[in-house]
Amino acid sequence: VINVTIKRVNRKLFYQNIVFNFYLDHIQDDAGNEIKEYFVMQPKNMKENGGGGVAILPFINNKIGLINVYRPPLNSYQWEIPHGFIESGETDQKAAARELAEETGLIVDFESCISLGFVAPDAGVIAARVHLFVVESIIEASQSTYELGLGKFVFFDIYEIKRMIFNSEIQDGFTLVAIFKYLSNKGLVSWNL
Amino acid sequence: VINVTIKRVNRKLFYQNIVFNFYLDHIQDDAGNEIKEYFVMQPKNMKENGGGGVAILPFINNKIGLINVYRPPLNSYQWEIPHGFIESGETDQKAAARELAEETGLIVDFESCISLGFVAPDAGVIAARVHLFVVESIIEASQSTYELGLGKFVFFDIYEIKRMIFNSEIQDGFTLVAIFKYLSNKGLVSWNL
Repeated sequence: VINVTIKRVNRKLFYQNIVFNFYLDHIQDDAGNEIKEYFVMQPKNMKENGGGGVAILPFINNKIGLINVYRPPLNSYQWEIPHGFIESGETDQKAAARELAEETGLIVDFESCISLGFVAPDAGVIAARVHLFVVESIIEASQSTYELGLGKFVFFDIYEIKRMIFNSEIQDGFTLVAIFKYLSNKGLVSWNL
Repeated sequence: VINVTIKRVNRKLFYQNIVFNFYLDHIQDDAGNEIKEYFVMQPKNMKENGGGGVAILPFINNKIGLINVYRPPLNSYQWEIPHGFIESGETDQKAAARELAEETGLIVDFESCISLGFVAPDAGVIAARVHLFVVESIIEASQSTYELGLGKFVFFDIYEIKRMIFNSEIQDGFTLVAIFKYLSNKGLVSWNL
């Protein structure tokens, strides 16, 4: 199998809400294989580099902060790092600091938000990458804004985090990738090569 | 902030394709906060436990097999482990072995597919968990089935995998989580606690 060229021959916007555009794309490869209604959801403020969202790992005093968020699609509470959409005109770092403040009340200098790279949550349907960040110091801890579904915010030590990961108590893809990449960078997780 | 009870008061199916149902849910919490059209996409064959998909990491002779897949939503090729939907009546293990065979040509005993737990790709919109597996031995290597966008299948050693992860060359959330969890279980990645 070799890589072929695939192109979009048509795109139909069939629904939109506050944050996403939903498209049905007609795609085709060199050999004439095609999919006529390929479903794609794309954040409204998507950037040139394909970035659409940010997620930020708070690592303060050797503990990781997670929020318990009610997720209607799964009908359950999930342990997650703060994440959300980039607003129009906003840099990724500023979006990360804003999301953190809104969801946890932690106020940080946006310039101290350090990139951990990108994750594609589900490349088969979602037209965006999420930019992961970590922040290690805070300016102050204030009150978070209430949003529907936003539960308690708790700091866990690495022992507890490890247990929660391997018990599948933490299932959120952004959270898992951010934790692993950060702990690797930090040497708290090491690769035995 | 304490956790509140949130319930779905209404659900409207507004679109469906071969694999997903798309809903607009009306949700409400105890305090009367509500979202009238909350967008949810749900795999058609979702299981009781919320499982809808599987992903499988082939780890053969100390190398990890990744496929280069063209993803229309991102308009680019991504390095990914095989993944896909569970078919009606199929166990998660059988789905994992089938997806592996279809996308890579590797034939394995489904009973040798070992669970690595669950990941929620984007719990804000997708009503399903993906069950991660690893397989360490194959029965035979045959030809994969051509699907639009399916590119070359390559085995990488752990050095290359590490480099690709930290360069953001591997961005797929399922792939990243499966690799980290498996290498941790195997002691190839260790936690310095």
